[in-house]
Amino acid sequence: MSVIPGTGAGAEQLTQFIERIERLEEEKRALMADIKDVYAEAKATGFEPKIMRQIVRMRAMDRDLLSEQDALLDTYRDALGLR
Amino acid sequence: MSVIPGTGAGAEQLTQFIERIERLEEEKRALMADIKDVYAEAKATGFEPKIMRQIVRMRAMDRDLLSEQDALLDTYRDALGLR
Amino acid sequence: MSVIPGTGAGAEQLTQFIERIERLEEEKRALMADIKDVYAEAKATGFEPKIMRQIVRMRAMDRDLLSEQDALLDTYRDALGLR
Amino acid sequence: MSVIPGTGAGAEQLTQFIERIERLEEEKRALMADIKDVYAEAKATGFEPKIMRQIVRMRAMDRDLLSEQDALLDTYRDALGLR
Repeated sequence: MSVIPGTGAGAEQLTQFIERIERLEEEKRALMADIKDVYAEAKATGFEPKIMRQIVRMRAMDRDLLSEQDALLDTYRDALGLR
Repeated sequence: MSVIPGTGAGAEQLTQFIERIERLEEEKRALMADIKDVYAEAKATGFEPKIMRQIVRMRAMDRDLLSEQDALLDTYRDALGLR
Repeated sequence: MSVIPGTGAGAEQLTQFIERIERLEEEKRALMADIKDVYAEAKATGFEPKIMRQIVRMRAMDRDLLSEQDALLDTYRDALGLR
Repeated sequence: MSVIPGTGAGAEQLTQFIERIERLEEEKRALMADIKDVYAEAKATGFEPKIMRQIVRMRAMDRDLLSEQDALLDTYRDALGLR
């Protein structure tokens, strides 16, 4: 088994690591396709994906932090006449 | 059930779409953590994650295209003395 | 002058293109540093960069579209109790 | 002048920061368009933008590091039969 310089490990081990990563990347692509499908389904129902993404981001936030950012955004928008 | 204007669908349906997306995003985060772990494991063995990522990209490419790009890169590097 | 296969142009021309790109990329990096500095200055004054970025995005939007998205976001947030 | 809570500064100052950022972002967009134009010009001459980007990245690297990565990539490619 040819040892790869600087690693003390061989081609076989490198291949195993690469193949494990490839399987996980494949699963990740499939999941991202599923997510895309759900947004497409929601859009077909009349919902707006761009706004849904904002909702998902907001729901993942700490509720106090969300309120703080809401208040700050309102203050800045008022200050700049961005209504 | 309050219907959401412009959608003909209600809050319940919107909640279901959002919760499906959140579950899939959670799975995706877990997968990305697994991928990160494999690279860390490989690094601990002495392999170089940055080069492994190039290998993963190259293995995903069409072999003829990879050879074409190899040849072109060599040509440009020679032309610019980038050896 | 060595002609680069498939291009009918030589190393010198490739070098000129690459050097033009490098100069522009350098200018771009300097601009990005300037932008970062302004946010840092604003932060030191007490403003919140994250909210300022939202303001910059909103000001770049068509005003009617912004109002539409505001209304939709409010509707979805109410439907999901995200207040 | 209305002072913005938590900042001790007013709407006018916030506006100035935002406008400075907008001018810099505008210059950045113009530069990115210039970079895109140079790649398009090079492509029209027969050069391959994707390979040119690799060359730009490589030229920005420390030469010894580039050689090290070249050698490692070759070793991994040989170990995986990726020729």
